[in-house]
Amino acid sequence: MPAKARKTAVELRSQCPVCGALDVLGDKWTLLIVRDMLYMGKTRYGQFAKSMEGIPTNILADRLKKMQKLGLITAKPYQKHPPRYEYRLTPMGEGLRPVLVELMRWSNTHIPGTMVPPPEVFNQS
Amino acid sequence: MPAKARKTAVELRSQCPVCGALDVLGDKWTLLIVRDMLYMGKTRYGQFAKSMEGIPTNILADRLKKMQKLGLITAKPYQKHPPRYEYRLTPMGEGLRPVLVELMRWSNTHIPGTMVPPPEVFNQS
Repeated sequence: MPAKARKTAVELRSQCPVCGALDVLGDKWTLLIVRDMLYMGKTRYGQFAKSMEGIPTNILADRLKKMQKLGLITAKPYQKHPPRYEYRLTPMGEGLRPVLVELMRWSNTHIPGTMVPPPEVFNQS
Repeated sequence: MPAKARKTAVELRSQCPVCGALDVLGDKWTLLIVRDMLYMGKTRYGQFAKSMEGIPTNILADRLKKMQKLGLITAKPYQKHPPRYEYRLTPMGEGLRPVLVELMRWSNTHIPGTMVPPPEVFNQS
């Protein structure tokens, strides 16, 4: 069990909860992978790689590993040769839904040209 | 009026509102500056520079400029020699309050050791 890895997977800049969230979420790709899992039902590497933002595959592989270490997702093998994994959100990852909802609301209000999601997206959090 | 600068201040990776928000917010420092303005009443460069996360001053200066271009804050001169500015959130910047609230809630639930803000913080959004 990587109990130590879990603890040191990321260095928090302070005890502030805003800061902590940003330190754990880390960069602009992690929340897009969470989005793909929450709203597009994606679970596999090849599916994430096809997202419209065109995540570079080296970054994708790195983020999936980091997200496991941080406890945001789990990886379950579904094929042995070559090894392939199915990724699922943990409760910690699932818990980001209200954050995504507020980010979408904010974008739709303040960034011209952003797509408005179907209303059920805003009723789920 | 920098209408063009406003439009091209940031390149959006897609029309997805989650992605758009991440592109505009940009990095791990911008939301901490928003936090300092929303919850600590900070308005001046020297105050932001003193935040517990120790933002490097070159990054701080750069972010304050970017945040103006993006429409998140305004800068009003309060001293001419040397020039000094008072920074205030625009409605676009103020609109990030619910995002910060959900980030704090998530951190308090899932990241051990993060400070729990006073209850009124969660009742304001």
